[in-house]
Amino acid sequence: MNSAELVDLGQQLRVDSVRASAAAGSGHPTSSMSAADLMAVLLAHHFHYDPDRPAHPGNDRFVLSKGHASPLMYAAFKAAGLIDDAELLTFRALGSALEGHPTPRRLPWVETATGSLGQGLPVGVGIALAGARLDRTGYRVWVLCGDSELAEGSVWEAAEQAAYEHLDNLTAIVDVNRLGQRGPTRHGHDLDAYARRFAAFGWHTVEVDGHDVDAIDRACAEARSTKGQPTVILARTLKGKGVASVEDREGLHGKPLKDADEAVAELGGRRDHRIRLQEPPDVRMLHAVRTGDYELPAWDLGEEVPTRDAYGKALTALGTGRGDVVALDGEVGDSTRAELFAKEHPDRYFECYIAEQQMVAAAVGLASRGWVPYAATFAAFLTRAHDFVRMASISGSGINLVGSHAGVAIGQDGPSQMGLEDLAMMRAVHGSTVLYPCDANQTARLVATMAGLDGIRYLRTSRGKTPVLYPPDEEFPVGGSKVLRSSGADRLTLVAAGVTVHEALDAAELLEREGIAARVIDLYSVKPVDRTALRRAAEETGCLITVEDHREEGGLGDAVLDAFTDGRPVPRLVRLAVRTMPGSASPDEQLHAAGIDAESIAVAARLLVAEAIVP
Amino acid sequence: MNSAELVDLGQQLRVDSVRASAAAGSGHPTSSMSAADLMAVLLAHHFHYDPDRPAHPGNDRFVLSKGHASPLMYAAFKAAGLIDDAELLTFRALGSALEGHPTPRRLPWVETATGSLGQGLPVGVGIALAGARLDRTGYRVWVLCGDSELAEGSVWEAAEQAAYEHLDNLTAIVDVNRLGQRGPTRHGHDLDAYARRFAAFGWHTVEVDGHDVDAIDRACAEARSTKGQPTVILARTLKGKGVASVEDREGLHGKPLKDADEAVAELGGRRDHRIRLQEPPDVRMLHAVRTGDYELPAWDLGEEVPTRDAYGKALTALGTGRGDVVALDGEVGDSTRAELFAKEHPDRYFECYIAEQQMVAAAVGLASRGWVPYAATFAAFLTRAHDFVRMASISGSGINLVGSHAGVAIGQDGPSQMGLEDLAMMRAVHGSTVLYPCDANQTARLVATMAGLDGIRYLRTSRGKTPVLYPPDEEFPVGGSKVLRSSGADRLTLVAAGVTVHEALDAAELLEREGIAARVIDLYSVKPVDRTALRRAAEETGCLITVEDHREEGGLGDAVLDAFTDGRPVPRLVRLAVRTMPGSASPDEQLHAAGIDAESIAVAARLLVAEAIVP
Repeated sequence: MNSAELVDLGQQLRVDSVRASAAAGSGHPTSSMSAADLMAVLLAHHFHYDPDRPAHPGNDRFVLSKGHASPLMYAAFKAAGLIDDAELLTFRALGSALEGHPTPRRLPWVETATGSLGQGLPVGVGIALAGARLDRTGYRVWVLCGDSELAEGSVWEAAEQAAYEHLDNLTAIVDVNRLGQRGPTRHGHDLDAYARRFAAFGWHTVEVDGHDVDAIDRACAEARSTKGQPTVILARTLKGKGVASVEDREGLHGKPLKDADEAVAELGGRRDHRIRLQEPPDVRMLHAVRTGDYELPAWDLGEEVPTRDAYGKALTALGTGRGDVVALDGEVGDSTRAELFAKEHPDRYFECYIAEQQMVAAAVGLASRGWVPYAATFAAFLTRAHDFVRMASISGSGINLVGSHAGVAIGQDGPSQMGLEDLAMMRAVHGSTVLYPCDANQTARLVATMAGLDGIRYLRTSRGKTPVLYPPDEEFPVGGSKVLRSSGADRLTLVAAGVTVHEALDAAELLEREGIAARVIDLYSVKPVDRTALRRAAEETGCLITVEDHREEGGLGDAVLDAFTDGRPVPRLVRLAVRTMPGSASPDEQLHAAGIDAESIAVAARLLVAEAIVP
Repeated sequence: MNSAELVDLGQQLRVDSVRASAAAGSGHPTSSMSAADLMAVLLAHHFHYDPDRPAHPGNDRFVLSKGHASPLMYAAFKAAGLIDDAELLTFRALGSALEGHPTPRRLPWVETATGSLGQGLPVGVGIALAGARLDRTGYRVWVLCGDSELAEGSVWEAAEQAAYEHLDNLTAIVDVNRLGQRGPTRHGHDLDAYARRFAAFGWHTVEVDGHDVDAIDRACAEARSTKGQPTVILARTLKGKGVASVEDREGLHGKPLKDADEAVAELGGRRDHRIRLQEPPDVRMLHAVRTGDYELPAWDLGEEVPTRDAYGKALTALGTGRGDVVALDGEVGDSTRAELFAKEHPDRYFECYIAEQQMVAAAVGLASRGWVPYAATFAAFLTRAHDFVRMASISGSGINLVGSHAGVAIGQDGPSQMGLEDLAMMRAVHGSTVLYPCDANQTARLVATMAGLDGIRYLRTSRGKTPVLYPPDEEFPVGGSKVLRSSGADRLTLVAAGVTVHEALDAAELLEREGIAARVIDLYSVKPVDRTALRRAAEETGCLITVEDHREEGGLGDAVLDAFTDGRPVPRLVRLAVRTMPGSASPDEQLHAAGIDAESIAVAARLLVAEAIVP
């Protein structure tokens, strides 16, 4: 397209953004209008993509980090022929794939869900890592950011990783329209302020007038030819550009234009330019992803092994068998044991340093390109990435997250290092799977199983050693459980997972000496939960005690309730969990102080069986 | 102290760090040894603090952002006379105040809990904001950071806010020892790399040899005399400095020295220097914090008002009555309605832009100086600050968090903007209070009540209008509930909060027409929960239906169970919650699609009363 046509295409995108928002009665047309020329030039001249083959290995990838500018994205992809005008006008309606903020669930050309600001660039870095280090098919990643979102620290985690990894296949385009939701940004139109920051982090920077199509064109070309570092194009724009009543004005964020017809007229009326996207190169994946036999590590019954060790060893073995498995670390690989994978498969290991948001975002990006990521850090520090996990579930992303150092059982390091809220966090994520093994063989099996699941999968591992309870060939289906101890005379059931399984077994031993038979269930699959086994235990033993090294809210106790919320009779329940704020102490002292060791379980069991209400 | 004495003091701090870790059998001596000279010079020459009066308004504040270097901090405060040698050697033992990572719960000179990296500087910015904008007693804030933790985005959120607010009372000292936990950092000893980044963000930077006491001394003096911008002192150091077997070596993070006696000898043996801290200036708070009468806003029964509007108006009124109330915004003040406070009390309003981690950290810092912060953003985006909320609870910090736009009821904007996991997240925080009002008068009362509570207090508000159910003078005690509808013949109880209260009332109306009497409980206090009312409802009506605009895990349904986990008989239960992934749709369509509208509640109620198991 020549310059005049590009200018006209920009106007078309504005018109369609205004129309879609008007049809919806809501949306963000002014945030779309500022970036319309950027989008027009990018798609018409620089974006290589085969619309008929969204999975083409040579396709460039586009991420709309400022997800609220979805009208612009939909308008652009209408111009590219991916949707028609009728679909455009379903924007934000019940059942429409064109949601208020883009999600990839029904739009194959959307790479990741956005709408929580500061996440698009981090995920884009993950895709660019896949492109540069794994896929190597030459695709580029283009991320359109807002200026407001540069206040999010996650953007700078991404900036750091992108430069450190020399991701010259990544370009960020920042729509500096100077206005956030509630008013001016910190830096307004001071493009230099942003350029200084990106340059300091190691990026190539270009400043342009974001409404000058030729300047944008040159900037995109410069980004494509820059080697060894990522490029940021900082574009000075006006929010609401093109319609005088809204241009560069405060107080209009997220509001449709008052008179859409008038605005469309002011923008020159409807047009119907069709963008011919550049063809992707004729490439195949340069390397075959090998999937072959592998042998999981195995341990003998009774051996004392930390489940985190089993994680590292099992993942390494899995990586040998499956060439699509990759590992990510938050600078604690010696603790999570991810470092074992690094030694064996350095090409598929991504060191993300202490930047948990970026670690999870990179996993999402890698998963979007078909890789099977395992990202591990302390369970406590996964809370740092909660919003990224939440958004990953909206994307329908398939990622494995592993949280080590669960619970008070870590001992002396104290509460800052203890994962005590992770089960609640991960269970509340839509479509998640939450696994919590108690021994090494179980861990190894679950690590392998996770790879084949959908959605967010979470594995909780422990710091200290626990004895091996299961033979290496035992199967652990997701949604299952194991009855570790039972008799025909069980008077109650102890439901445990992870370290508390061992405490529950000891408690059952103590109780048996007093003539109280207790069933013990290892609920390694915290979500989904084994409703059948729990219901049977309720029917046969009448009452349940749940024991967890986690806060009492949202964890194992809550999971057990899932079996009884359909109106059926509910067994009597006691929930043992960490109710105090721990300090430093040995692991045994911690379990005792929290009231989740064998002795505490036995006390609760005696009271429950005697039908004495526990105070 | 002269230079030789400062050098010797540094050695003493190393010796005591080694001894404390040896006594504990765990800890981080090498991370302490790198920063010992920095700490020695800072405390001996530049830190103004009255050890007998930790609350002195003129005291400087020190934050150990690299919290794992706690042995150094304890060694330093032993040298300053705050603890004795016997207490130093209780490090990490059960019951000791000297935990593995410092917490302020039992140490008045610890300002905030650290140990999750990248949080000390953000909280330090909050304290410095209090000093510069509110307290104005001239104190300085000194934050000792590690180099590894500069990878956390939260550090750059803090850097941005500190420079933007011209916090020249803030100094960050970075112990650049080039080694993280598992190996070298990204930038090693390249001090310039860090200096470029901080300078780009608007900081004054100083680079020094972190083992040259005179250079450190000059750098601290330069920081104190720098006006208009914060200063970062980038100090080149060696991890394990002073003991050849561990100095600058990998693989020794978080490990006591193998032979502590030998190391102490190599360091020159035990010493007993006593630091005389500089006296704080003789100041009082320059402004009295006014607490007087104020009138909460009031609405008439039946008026349709969003609870977020009630939040903004009530907080503004509270701020008029209480001069210690401050408000923080994450650049969505027009949505949360915090902007109403800004108009009335601009001096006590802190715009944090789109940086939720920094917003919560600033609240923690402000609270540590006695202010009563209310920090608000969308409930969904508070997940971004989950780790900061977790750490705030470890600090015992008293902060108010407000999450607006809860649930699917927001409508068209789609799932990225919907708070659907916030109740689970906030309930699992130790010692938290979780409140979820359903009308404007209730909201106003709860906003005022929150100010007087301990710990983390969370208020969940809604985007859309709901009718006022309660008169303005109704009381809403924390831990209470309201029975909105009941009769002597209730056959079940509907337990709801927020928007679902109104759906439950409508459902009860539908059911009554069919001859099914239903009790309706407004469970506005989600944590703590009203056990008495729930138990009475269970006894009198036999079964409960919980209805929440939230994921089914960890929210209202789980909260209700709190009343029944002491072994008593549990009522039959049905839990209605958001089980699908919403798209865009109108609020009513969303509630219906999620199965939490009046019609869905009535369907479940009929089945439950008929004792037909709900599928």
